[in-house]
Amino acid sequence: MEMKLPGQEEFEASSAPRNIPSGELDSNPGPGTGPSPDGPSDTESKELGVRKDPLLFIQLNELLGWPQALEWRETGRWVLFEEKLEVAAGRWSAPHVPTLALPSLQKLRSLLAEGLVLLDCPAQSLLELVEQVTRVESLSPELRGQLQALLLQRPQHYNQTTGTRPCWGSTHPRKASDNEEAPLREQYQNPLRQKLPPGAEAGTVLAGELGFLAQPLGAFVRLRDPVVLGSLTEVSLPSRFFCLLLGPPMLGKGYHEMGRAAAVLLSDPQFQWSVRRASNLHDLLAALDAFLEEVTVLPPGRWDPTARIPPPKCLPSQHKRLPSQQREIRGPSGPRLTSAEDRHRHGLHAPSQELQRTGRLFGGLIQDVRRKAPWYPSDFLDALHLQCFSAVLYIYLATVTNAITFGGLLGDATDGAQGVLESFLGTAVAGAAFCLMAGQPLTILSSTGPVLVFERLLFSFSRDYSLDYLPFRLWVGIWVATFCLVLVATEASVLVRYFTRFTEEGFCALISLIFIYDAVGKMLNLTHTYPIQKPGSSTYGCLCQYPGPGGNDSQWIRTRPKDRDDIVSMVRKGLSDFSSVLAILLGCGLDAFLGLATPKLTVPREFKPTLPGRGWLVSPFGTNPWWWSVAAALPALLLSILIFMDQQITAVILNRVEYRLQKGAGFHLDLFCVAVLMLLTSVLGLPWYVSATVISLAHMDSLRRESRACAPGELRNFLGIREQRLTGLVVFILTGASIFLAPVLKFIPMPVLYGIFLYMGVAALSSIQFTKRVKLLLMPAKHQPDLLLLRHVPLTRVHLFTAIQLVCLGLLWIIKSTPAAIIFPLMLLGLVGVRKALERVFSPQELLWLDELMPEEERSIPEKGLEPEHSFSGSDSEDSELMYQPKAPEINISVN
Amino acid sequence: MEMKLPGQEEFEASSAPRNIPSGELDSNPGPGTGPSPDGPSDTESKELGVRKDPLLFIQLNELLGWPQALEWRETGRWVLFEEKLEVAAGRWSAPHVPTLALPSLQKLRSLLAEGLVLLDCPAQSLLELVEQVTRVESLSPELRGQLQALLLQRPQHYNQTTGTRPCWGSTHPRKASDNEEAPLREQYQNPLRQKLPPGAEAGTVLAGELGFLAQPLGAFVRLRDPVVLGSLTEVSLPSRFFCLLLGPPMLGKGYHEMGRAAAVLLSDPQFQWSVRRASNLHDLLAALDAFLEEVTVLPPGRWDPTARIPPPKCLPSQHKRLPSQQREIRGPSGPRLTSAEDRHRHGLHAPSQELQRTGRLFGGLIQDVRRKAPWYPSDFLDALHLQCFSAVLYIYLATVTNAITFGGLLGDATDGAQGVLESFLGTAVAGAAFCLMAGQPLTILSSTGPVLVFERLLFSFSRDYSLDYLPFRLWVGIWVATFCLVLVATEASVLVRYFTRFTEEGFCALISLIFIYDAVGKMLNLTHTYPIQKPGSSTYGCLCQYPGPGGNDSQWIRTRPKDRDDIVSMVRKGLSDFSSVLAILLGCGLDAFLGLATPKLTVPREFKPTLPGRGWLVSPFGTNPWWWSVAAALPALLLSILIFMDQQITAVILNRVEYRLQKGAGFHLDLFCVAVLMLLTSVLGLPWYVSATVISLAHMDSLRRESRACAPGELRNFLGIREQRLTGLVVFILTGASIFLAPVLKFIPMPVLYGIFLYMGVAALSSIQFTKRVKLLLMPAKHQPDLLLLRHVPLTRVHLFTAIQLVCLGLLWIIKSTPAAIIFPLMLLGLVGVRKALERVFSPQELLWLDELMPEEERSIPEKGLEPEHSFSGSDSEDSELMYQPKAPEINISVN
Repeated sequence: MEMKLPGQEEFEASSAPRNIPSGELDSNPGPGTGPSPDGPSDTESKELGVRKDPLLFIQLNELLGWPQALEWRETGRWVLFEEKLEVAAGRWSAPHVPTLALPSLQKLRSLLAEGLVLLDCPAQSLLELVEQVTRVESLSPELRGQLQALLLQRPQHYNQTTGTRPCWGSTHPRKASDNEEAPLREQYQNPLRQKLPPGAEAGTVLAGELGFLAQPLGAFVRLRDPVVLGSLTEVSLPSRFFCLLLGPPMLGKGYHEMGRAAAVLLSDPQFQWSVRRASNLHDLLAALDAFLEEVTVLPPGRWDPTARIPPPKCLPSQHKRLPSQQREIRGPSGPRLTSAEDRHRHGLHAPSQELQRTGRLFGGLIQDVRRKAPWYPSDFLDALHLQCFSAVLYIYLATVTNAITFGGLLGDATDGAQGVLESFLGTAVAGAAFCLMAGQPLTILSSTGPVLVFERLLFSFSRDYSLDYLPFRLWVGIWVATFCLVLVATEASVLVRYFTRFTEEGFCALISLIFIYDAVGKMLNLTHTYPIQKPGSSTYGCLCQYPGPGGNDSQWIRTRPKDRDDIVSMVRKGLSDFSSVLAILLGCGLDAFLGLATPKLTVPREFKPTLPGRGWLVSPFGTNPWWWSVAAALPALLLSILIFMDQQITAVILNRVEYRLQKGAGFHLDLFCVAVLMLLTSVLGLPWYVSATVISLAHMDSLRRESRACAPGELRNFLGIREQRLTGLVVFILTGASIFLAPVLKFIPMPVLYGIFLYMGVAALSSIQFTKRVKLLLMPAKHQPDLLLLRHVPLTRVHLFTAIQLVCLGLLWIIKSTPAAIIFPLMLLGLVGVRKALERVFSPQELLWLDELMPEEERSIPEKGLEPEHSFSGSDSEDSELMYQPKAPEINISVN
Repeated sequence: MEMKLPGQEEFEASSAPRNIPSGELDSNPGPGTGPSPDGPSDTESKELGVRKDPLLFIQLNELLGWPQALEWRETGRWVLFEEKLEVAAGRWSAPHVPTLALPSLQKLRSLLAEGLVLLDCPAQSLLELVEQVTRVESLSPELRGQLQALLLQRPQHYNQTTGTRPCWGSTHPRKASDNEEAPLREQYQNPLRQKLPPGAEAGTVLAGELGFLAQPLGAFVRLRDPVVLGSLTEVSLPSRFFCLLLGPPMLGKGYHEMGRAAAVLLSDPQFQWSVRRASNLHDLLAALDAFLEEVTVLPPGRWDPTARIPPPKCLPSQHKRLPSQQREIRGPSGPRLTSAEDRHRHGLHAPSQELQRTGRLFGGLIQDVRRKAPWYPSDFLDALHLQCFSAVLYIYLATVTNAITFGGLLGDATDGAQGVLESFLGTAVAGAAFCLMAGQPLTILSSTGPVLVFERLLFSFSRDYSLDYLPFRLWVGIWVATFCLVLVATEASVLVRYFTRFTEEGFCALISLIFIYDAVGKMLNLTHTYPIQKPGSSTYGCLCQYPGPGGNDSQWIRTRPKDRDDIVSMVRKGLSDFSSVLAILLGCGLDAFLGLATPKLTVPREFKPTLPGRGWLVSPFGTNPWWWSVAAALPALLLSILIFMDQQITAVILNRVEYRLQKGAGFHLDLFCVAVLMLLTSVLGLPWYVSATVISLAHMDSLRRESRACAPGELRNFLGIREQRLTGLVVFILTGASIFLAPVLKFIPMPVLYGIFLYMGVAALSSIQFTKRVKLLLMPAKHQPDLLLLRHVPLTRVHLFTAIQLVCLGLLWIIKSTPAAIIFPLMLLGLVGVRKALERVFSPQELLWLDELMPEEERSIPEKGLEPEHSFSGSDSEDSELMYQPKAPEINISVN
């Protein structure tokens, strides 16, 4: 769907797995089919090393009601984040980052140091465990009996499934008998159980004030074999850890806080790792001390300790916290993987095999085919998943909307030489063929904005010279195909590494501006053709003019997606998936309801070319002189550059490391397919097609493989993409079948399509970093957001970079607006040159933050080392975590 | 300005002073005039007790460049929050909450414990200080000399004022001579200096690695008299504290982190208080330990320590942290103030003197006059401040917009019995008179929405009975004035304490819905009068109809204020202040540009009543039978209820404790004035006026007194309001003079005014808690925001409360839409009854969270005590800080 831009959910979630602390969630990979090369998901799992440790669910049971009505109540639970029981409201709080008071951690430490620590306790039931735990010298036999009875008492769990008032799991408490050992029905029915991955274990902390104890009693137990301890835990999970913190009444909420501290400790991945391997009390305390060494401390005067911090989008990377033993487990593959991981973290283009020059003619293409061929059977088998059905529906709607929008605009731009019918047919044929042959079959083809702009230029050029458009266009297509084949043969695709964000965003900004300018221009033009009635204007005074309000309705639609933020977010997701379809339907409905005389989409009534009198095959010369077929090589050269840039920049984005694609890319093969399809569509007089970034990203997004298990507050665990050819193929077959929708399409008013076009321009423009920097130009320093690049690059340098981009953009715009317009693809290529020249103005460090590095620069950095300033400042290490966050979200090149 | 709703900047900032840690900013009160009763600002300052301690500016100078190029560089600074120097970017970071690593605090503690602690050091210059500090046994004379030279070396400060590249304050470093002692020009010119209040002191932390030291050297100095220590600090402030942390190189950034820890400690208000009073090392370490006891700890696995936390909107209250000595300072007035403060914190209505019944006829009125009379001279003298000029301009524009909007709508509603001219005249006369006489002269009168709705009902009623409208209205006015006088005489205003949020929001929701319904209805009506041309429609086929697009332009305007969020915020403030003026101008511009045949505001060409043929005095009977003057008492009764509710609810909001008004309220006097003006405007046939919440709040906001000194990241320190009568008076004189603007006003299209009306309805509706709760009805629990009320009230109870409100609203709407419409003010009063009945359904705790408490309930809570659940949960103490945040922002009753 065009309205969905990259860098939103897709990227957020795709960056998640890097942030999952080691060993917290099972990888739960899908059924492996086909060969299994050393993909990123595999390396990640090896790198983490401690993957085998099961997830731990921790629960705090508090002893309340001393002295009259002693009972255990669950008051908090932890998986990744803390959830607190809101007693009065009868609900679990939203998951939040747990905050502790330092004294409670210290008190916990001393209680454990003096208390009972049983590691690898062989207890097989709660009864045995309780006997073991109460075998403490300080207790008299009588007290021991009392304590045992108390510990065997069934705890009250808040029952999430039931209704109105806070309701406690057990309706018959305080009945300590042996049937306590059997888990309760509620424990199995707990919705949390379905969320936790198989193999998850439980840890229980019991804390509270007990008046008959003379001195505090602390016990920490690690069970040798995890055992389901009756109704002790809210969910029926085998328990691994058991922590008891009881004592005589003290001031404040000492035991509650100590219990929380114990639970938070147990939920820490690093402490878990250590305590699972601890062999004595010393190890346990060392793990606690290691935790204390690494806590973040907020000063009391500047931070309200009662404020709840929502889960961060990015969990801190745990790789630095690995103790030495843990690192050793990673074995000899460690260094190589770390380096790959670093590159991956930096979000740099991976100079992968696909982009290494072979030096042979068509060498890249042959390699691509060789690389992709073994995956071909799996490309169909991998599609056998329910998810693919919904992906097909979603992408089908997006593709149809796209075909309507661009088809309508194309018909408009070429005076009906092509139209909606051609758009549907071309999309179906080209898209399906690409899905069957391409290197990256997840790509969705579309007649994108830049190509549309070029086509309009070409049309007006041919009209200026009174040429027969389609035959002239056929020759342009033939030449483009030829040039593209030359580019494939010479392995020109390896040059994509020079397309940095500077180029991508310059291109994107230009196209977006053209979209906006065109949409507004079209709308204003309508006021000439369909003038607004003016009072007292004699010209139109008594003529039967049908006035149209010139796109007011689509303007209104355009603002809707932003206003919608307030509506219930679940609903929102559903709506946003179909936003452009809804916008079109609403616009059409309004138009029909008000009976406006707007210009409508031109749709032929029969299945025949839009242009009257031509067959499906374009005649090679028509009425044009023969030499125009040679002259067509010049515009074709320019269009080739445009196609090359559009196709390859999109391909780079689609094949980013973040998506964890396992079957590899095929840059040369993709371009080859585009060349062949260019020839085909030119012969048939259909629109030209290249890869569409946003719609392809949406396609990939709808095919995400994610771990089903999801701890409260955690972002979903991204595992990869279902890479296959079937969904795309089915989408395009359906699109082809939709040609028979044509009679319905004639109710769509053109202003609605212009509105969508306008929205696409604005949305694409607002998604790029360049726009953010332009805003910085106007903002006083005090109000600027805390962008990472502003921490590392002087503001004046940022402004200089932005200014240079603005000048480039201005020049491109001027060229586009003069008669020299047709050479503007060449100028686009000039952007790469400008970017290269910027190396003389900016330091590699600055370019790293403002842009990305070109291949040579990337190599130069380790040689040169950092500037003195950097070694002074120490800022690098402080930001290091933040720097690892992918930059990818901000890159967006083409809006359809 | 109507578009600005309460609960935005006004409230945020007004809640700030409560959150300023004790003793951190001088109160810096404006020139005191008039008597000085025990106002809240005064009590606050007493309560804080430690106000005398000056503000501390802390700076961290790091020793960098060991061993080749040793130099001191400022790398961080603290007032309330931390600012870090971004070396590469050459700028100060945004202020953020400092985060520390625990080990650095512990290392600092042991270094100080073993180091040199000089309290009340008599040094008078840097040289003397350095000599004192280096007088350590462990240093050989040679090392001592080297160290002294190093310490006297001029540090490099980042110079904020200069240009492109990071530039360091001193261009000739390392020139240790006695002219080092003189502060540099840059130190004086530092922009920070102007921001810090007079009397501020500096603390400097010097930290770094020094290879020639054999063991770490720690020193902490408190100077007896604060002295400007040459160029040591970035700003030329007298230094009070000096902390030196040097040592041999160690792993990591040990000294940097230790230095930060020392600086953060010094910036803590509590530590500051203690260390200023410490008499020995033991006291110092005790203060550090007290700090450690209270820090908030975030677990390393769940929080990225490098993430920068922006300053919280609400600083934690420091009143709990006061040590016992400090509390004693507060003296005997302590308990009384704490109780007042608590009430104040809870945002409850203060049952102030103004609302105590005297039991005598007109007793309240007499008391009001007595209370206000002594302030009368100061009500004019206090206006002698530049701020009042801008306030006049701002409120004048808002008032004129208001007069145009409501005047236009009134003319529309009464078929021209009144109009814009009457609106201007009435606003000027009533407003000015009110400013001169009223109890709360900051109030701006306006013919508000509810009264307008009633007037429309009255008009249609009089038309149905073929009455002469203005004479009939005169009698209604006479009766209303009479009833209001009775209400004044019987001190009915004390009943306002029964108007809880339930009533306020029910009223507000109803009025908002009426606004929205009317605006949409009017717009749709226009399509009948000015139909949209339909293609092929024979009816309009060849007639000279001037079609109008029926308010499309104003719809567009309506969405603008939301879209504008992206634009530079400083610009935003400026625009938002004039948003409705701009919206009107834009709408008019568009209308004029497109030459639309929209219906325009009807404006008389001369200064005479809008209704042709009437004089300025309304004839007492006109063509009506005499007995209608008696019958008018019935609608007048209803209108009196409406006026009473509207006036008093607004008055309660305006006189809230948060605004720290010192001259007291005058509920009875205000109502008396409204009654008198009701009579006057009825006689002259002008609109009726009551207090307007939003515009009055805007008035107060523009008259805020704030401390000029403002530490980075801190919200401004709100001191009170310039309470006076002059600004309002001038505004209304100007409004009166604007009657001659009338010829310009006729260019305003009615759809533009409907659009503003619609916006006002939507904005008011979206600002109330009721709307939030209605949204909760539709939201699954997982996605609900972390509202405090949801932590304390079961969701089903919240839903029940919302449902009851919805039913009440539905009933009110039905009554409004039937012929019984005219009795709907009575039904409004019924809301209070319904709220009273809710006491039987909901517990006081639930009502405290969902609504507010009525006077009896408030009393009942201490008797009943908390429910067992509450004593179990301990949640109260955890939320206590959050609970103290004012609830006021959500209250908004009338939208103009």
